[in-house]
Formats: sequence, structure tokens, C-alpha cells
Amino acid sequence: MEMSYQNIKVIGFDADDTLWVNETYFREAENEFCKLLSDYETPNKIDQELFKMEMANLGLYGYGIKAFVLSMVESALELSNYNVSHKTLERILNIGKDMLNKPVELLDGVEEVLKVLSTKYKVILATKGDLLDQERKLEKSGLTEYFHHIEVLSDKKEANYSKLLKFLDVEPSEFLMIGNSLKSDVLPLVNLKANAVHVPFHTTWAHEEVTEKETNGKDYKTIGSLRELLKLLD
Amino acid sequence: MEMSYQNIKVIGFDADDTLWVNETYFREAENEFCKLLSDYETPNKIDQELFKMEMANLGLYGYGIKAFVLSMVESALELSNYNVSHKTLERILNIGKDMLNKPVELLDGVEEVLKVLSTKYKVILATKGDLLDQERKLEKSGLTEYFHHIEVLSDKKEANYSKLLKFLDVEPSEFLMIGNSLKSDVLPLVNLKANAVHVPFHTTWAHEEVTEKETNGKDYKTIGSLRELLKLLD
Repeated sequence: MEMSYQNIKVIGFDADDTLWVNETYFREAENEFCKLLSDYETPNKIDQELFKMEMANLGLYGYGIKAFVLSMVESALELSNYNVSHKTLERILNIGKDMLNKPVELLDGVEEVLKVLSTKYKVILATKGDLLDQERKLEKSGLTEYFHHIEVLSDKKEANYSKLLKFLDVEPSEFLMIGNSLKSDVLPLVNLKANAVHVPFHTTWAHEEVTEKETNGKDYKTIGSLRELLKLLD
Repeated sequence: MEMSYQNIKVIGFDADDTLWVNETYFREAENEFCKLLSDYETPNKIDQELFKMEMANLGLYGYGIKAFVLSMVESALELSNYNVSHKTLERILNIGKDMLNKPVELLDGVEEVLKVLSTKYKVILATKGDLLDQERKLEKSGLTEYFHHIEVLSDKKEANYSKLLKFLDVEPSEFLMIGNSLKSDVLPLVNLKANAVHVPFHTTWAHEEVTEKETNGKDYKTIGSLRELLKLLD
């Protein structure tokens, strides 16, 4: 089926790893965490246990850097059998602060694409994570003027997008979501019969990974760079 | 000047300590924190240092329970001169989890008032803190049906409310904010020439306290219970 984007009124952009680098900083933080705890376990085991901890806490903490830091502290206590040094725990807190203070590194073509699309569509930022952190990144990015507003969702499942469409007062066919995560930015929209374009980032958090079975036969486009959006929507 | 509420189209309710108990749980957590660290400092000193830590981290972490827990961990390390036990640190993490899992205790008259007002006005929830935590509390509260939507603001200053009014597409005179915090729910609105009603809660976080000078001559009403709203808006 050839998709048509003629009806689109609102375009939602994911933020992290769609507009700017994010996952890379989490990978760096995980690597440092593994080094800090290398007296107690192998990097592989540490990675696995930290991920398990994040998943166990996800329902309670949600997404974002603060949740990640709290899970690192809890993991460090457990992995070390309550022997980890206080200085290591302090360093873990500072890993989080360093992440929150990172400069925003825009991905290729972002500003060019937003400049064009924001004149033709209502363009919103639709992201999950900490509201304050996302607002700060948007401000640092210099992209604020292109967005009608910012929607921070507590999760990016079908129910969250359903609510968003209702709130925006648009039909699914009038909404296009663009993002790097098949799980969060693409499949829920396709299932709602809205439009979605996938722009892969080179690194994907394990939690966001999907199987081929989940994407099989699903109706969405994949592009290699955000720049290709302009042709697609022309 | 006698205020008139005839133009009101949208009513914003603060959530914590306006609709349900919140600050009480923070006070209980702080008391437990003081006990946990009583080997190192007096309760008074611990209280002061924790508050200083929260203020130092506020710009980076924002509001909410996760920010509070991260500041408790950092404070515990510093107050104990890096001697605090690992079990105490684990307990601090669990204080946060317990807070996130608290049941929602509605304040007097809340449901009755919302039931009436939601049929006459567009009623929204306007709160700061963690989006996920606030969504969860709203769901637990059973009040979801009365709200058009939930607005989680990263802060509650004039600029945040200005943006909100613009986004809601209402004039200041058409918006009424109701809440327990003079600093966050009342004064910024009065300064924007919007309407505000103050419903004090018995406990106020030090960060939310204002001086008499700040409220002197300001144009807002104070009521003793949310129930009085119905008469005020009649």
C-alpha cells in the first residue's frame, strides 16, 4: 500500500535520538558504572543486573535520568553486597548530574527540516522522560520556535497516543509521528491507524527493542536521515 | 475591590495539598531521615542541610519524589562524612518507593466541588512534580473524569502560567487558579491579572513560604475549605 500524507495536520517529533543525541550518554554512563563496580562483577553481569533493576523500577520511577540514577545506586548496593565505597556512590550521583548538564548535540538535518515543516504543519515535540530535563534540552537546542508545544508523555503506548490525539482534536489519519524507536514512536501509531515514520539511531536501549515479528507487515516508512522527510511530505 | 468571577472559562486546580494530602508524607520522610542519621547530627542540623541540598539541586532535578530521594542520598553521604551504613542508604531509597506507593487521601469536599464545577467550566489539573507520579495519583484518586486534562509544569512561575494561558487560548481574566501555595498557585496568577483563590493546607514546605510583604495588597481570596468555592462562584 502506498501511503499518502495529504491529510496530515499535526506532526509529532520524538526528541531523544531523533532530534538530538541521548542514548549515547546512557551507554557511556553504563560503561562507567561497570568500571566503578569491576571489583565485584563482570561488566556483562553488571549490565544485566542494572537493566533488571531499571525494569523492576520502571513502573514506579518512569523514564529519565533521575530514575536511571536511583536504579544505579540500588544496583551498586546489591551488586557489591553492600560493600561499595561511599565515594563510588557519590560518583554515581555525579554521573547523573553530568548527564543532566550535557550540551545538546543536534542530529543531521534537524533544524533544516523543522524550519520547513513548521510553516506547513502544527509541529509538536512528543517525548517521555522528565519534563524539566526535556524542557531544558529543547531550550538548549535552539529549536523552541519551531514547536507549537511540548508533550511529555509518561509512556508512549497506544493509550497515551489515543489520549494525545483526542486532546489535539485530530483524527489518526491527520497525525504523523516521527521517531527513532519502533516500539515507542512507530508501532503504537500504526496500530491506531495514524501515520509514523521511523528514523533509526545507531544505538537502541534494550527496553526499546522489538522483534521482527512485531514489525512484520506493519504500515510505516523508514528513512535514513531526517532530511528525507521533506521529500516524503512534498 | 470586589472580584467578579463572571468571565471565568477555565479553572486550574493544583493537586498536592489542594486535592489530596502530600506535604504530610514529605514531613514524615524528613523525620525518618533525621532518625536514620541521628548518630551524626542533631535533627535541626539534618533538616537544614537536607533543605540546602534540595535547593542546590532544584535547578537540575526539579520537583518531585525522585529529586527528593536523590538529595537525601547525597545529604546522607555528606552529613555522615561518608560513614553512613549501606542499609541506611537502602532504607532511604525505600522511603522514596513508599512515598510513590502511598494511597491518595482526598481532602474535604474535593469530589463534591469538582462534580459541580466540571459541568460549568473547563477544569484542568495544573501541578508540578513528576508527570508519572501525578498521573498515578490522579488515577488512584478516582477524579479523572472531572478533568479536561492534566498540565504538569516544570515550575509554577509567571512565565509557566503565561505559556499555559496562551496554550489554553484564554485571557487572564478568564482563568481561575485554585491552590494551597501562595507562591506557586496564587501570586504568579495575580501578577498576570488572572484570578486566584488560596486554600491553605496546614503544612507548607519551606520553599513555598512567602513573606507578608509579598502578599500585601494582592488581589486574591482565601477560603478555609474547598467547599466555599461553590458559593464564591455561584
